[in-house]
Amino acid sequence: MKFVIQKDKLAQSVQDVMKAVSSRTTIPILTGIKISANSEGVTLTGSDSDISIESFIPAEEKGKINVEVETAGSIVLQARFFSEIVKKLPKDTVEMEVQNHFSTIIRSGKAEFNLIGLDAEEYPHLPNVEEDHVFRIPADLLKTLIRQTGFAVSTSETRPILTGVNWRLENGELTCIATDSHRLALRKTSIDGANEGKYNVVIPGKSLSELSKILDDTNDLTEILFTDNQVLFKAKNILFFSRLLDGNYPDTSRLIPDESKTDVLVQAKEFLQSIDRASLLAKEGRNNVVKLSTMDGGMLEISSNSPEIGKVIEEVQTEEISGEELKISFSAKYMMDALKALDSSEIKVSFTGAMRPFLIRTPEDDSILQLILPVRTY
Amino acid sequence: MKFVIQKDKLAQSVQDVMKAVSSRTTIPILTGIKISANSEGVTLTGSDSDISIESFIPAEEKGKINVEVETAGSIVLQARFFSEIVKKLPKDTVEMEVQNHFSTIIRSGKAEFNLIGLDAEEYPHLPNVEEDHVFRIPADLLKTLIRQTGFAVSTSETRPILTGVNWRLENGELTCIATDSHRLALRKTSIDGANEGKYNVVIPGKSLSELSKILDDTNDLTEILFTDNQVLFKAKNILFFSRLLDGNYPDTSRLIPDESKTDVLVQAKEFLQSIDRASLLAKEGRNNVVKLSTMDGGMLEISSNSPEIGKVIEEVQTEEISGEELKISFSAKYMMDALKALDSSEIKVSFTGAMRPFLIRTPEDDSILQLILPVRTY
Repeated sequence: MKFVIQKDKLAQSVQDVMKAVSSRTTIPILTGIKISANSEGVTLTGSDSDISIESFIPAEEKGKINVEVETAGSIVLQARFFSEIVKKLPKDTVEMEVQNHFSTIIRSGKAEFNLIGLDAEEYPHLPNVEEDHVFRIPADLLKTLIRQTGFAVSTSETRPILTGVNWRLENGELTCIATDSHRLALRKTSIDGANEGKYNVVIPGKSLSELSKILDDTNDLTEILFTDNQVLFKAKNILFFSRLLDGNYPDTSRLIPDESKTDVLVQAKEFLQSIDRASLLAKEGRNNVVKLSTMDGGMLEISSNSPEIGKVIEEVQTEEISGEELKISFSAKYMMDALKALDSSEIKVSFTGAMRPFLIRTPEDDSILQLILPVRTY
Repeated sequence: MKFVIQKDKLAQSVQDVMKAVSSRTTIPILTGIKISANSEGVTLTGSDSDISIESFIPAEEKGKINVEVETAGSIVLQARFFSEIVKKLPKDTVEMEVQNHFSTIIRSGKAEFNLIGLDAEEYPHLPNVEEDHVFRIPADLLKTLIRQTGFAVSTSETRPILTGVNWRLENGELTCIATDSHRLALRKTSIDGANEGKYNVVIPGKSLSELSKILDDTNDLTEILFTDNQVLFKAKNILFFSRLLDGNYPDTSRLIPDESKTDVLVQAKEFLQSIDRASLLAKEGRNNVVKLSTMDGGMLEISSNSPEIGKVIEEVQTEEISGEELKISFSAKYMMDALKALDSSEIKVSFTGAMRPFLIRTPEDDSILQLILPVRTY
């Protein structure tokens, strides 16, 4: 293998595939990045066996030469060293050449590195995903779906299925649901041209969060393909594979109340900031719990109390409070996560009593919903 | 105590005095910030007993009202909570009021905190520093002196005196020296109007680094006062106290060679970057050591070798190499620290053989000097 490549293209690809490389893998060759060159261009691969990322640098792009390949071939180089080296090379072009016994020269200007590589034949093959079932989502919408649901997955391995986000596609509508059993995030969106497909899969939250980091903020379509145990996201010059989680995702529809007894319409930013302040004294002791009470004149009272430190009490003017009086306690962190995910200046909170789950939504929009279970303190 | 204060002024003062507050103190009241108000203004104090910082907010400044004091008094509030609260208050002004049993109200807009305070009478008194011996340095120069020497102090408590920077003032010249016994940093500067004073003290490196963070980048004069075991830095509205280290600082003058056998004149940035690249493979294994060899044609060869990972070799074009041929090994980290401290586009390295300490200097300027002990590898 021998080629000359533009440093910025190589560095970007290395950064992308590094998202899949873990230093704590039990398979030694996976601490490396696989580099393959042929007349079409150069392909980099990183994997931790759960996630695999392939990044392709075409030899030529928009009339500009990215790579000049002299000899095709492949090699695996230690990811940690290779990525640091590429970042710090002195010139705009880099020459790479595999010599005897996988010894690999990386040359740029007057700097010459010689790394001990590994046989690319021993690098695991990526899953084979058939192109039968494919649907498409713009990259920026995909990132939004991930951001609005991914935070609510469970971080505990007690119920592994809850560490993933449930994706259901039916009748051209995709529903993404995440819950850690104390709160739930749901986001729906219609998918153009996917009326035929029907899926119900669970994608690891960690995979989605890494995917989100390498997708561009454009409306370029990302192709999504499923097999029994794998999902493949295909963006421009990037393939992102993730395993799916085994098992059935719980039916969460019964959790979501379809009536409410108290409804509050409030400015999201003001409400978020008052919860944030109340949580300052709630972090100590009792699990970051704040109290909310409805008051006369459309006011909410947000408060928390930490016996050894002190207490905080704050009034928030709402747009409207309708229905029964209410006192309820909940996790400040869950509420702040939900409010940040909603992307709305005005939000509607619907309660059905102090001990029932409550909903946070954008007024007049049912494509997104956040649910929180209250905490018993009264 | 009761006053109304501008939030930004309070937040800045809290941030300054927090630099002295440690959560790991053995004296419980020192986890707090002392707040005192009188007709002149409000004073905040933080201390970990090694460092104490006092920040004063004058009631009026340049015709602008900062504080309106209704009742004088003082209180100690938990630093961690108080600092977080002040940052997140909703309005531009803050009302503070001490009630019964040190209970303290902090009110801003519709948010009201009630913190359990401690008796300010129990807060330790700051050292009493007489104004007999005082000299003055512009704040930006003081920060530069600290940056150019402080990094070279020892981080090990084996020889506690080496964790400090030696400051000597004699004949109107201040010399700052730091060494961890593997390298040494020295910076001299003349001090206007200090021909009479004569000091030889050792200031903890940590104190100087915290001081540097709260000084502004202006040429406002900072007053410096010494007692037997304390130093006081007086900047505008800030008093910064630090204890001095006990014991005699070693005589380092014999360490510094006064002749050289090989001199290299080189561009600092190019040299730094090549050392940085060579160190990428040197971090593993042998203590971050790189090799330097003089070559024909005014070239330097920088290299390192890590048997399990690979090797790197790079040539650097110098301005001039004079004297004997040389092969020498040294810590890449020490060399990079020294080069960054010099602030010069061109630097001169003077060697007196492969096993003798060598000097890195700015050409034609003897106010700053960096010394490194080589490592035996040849």
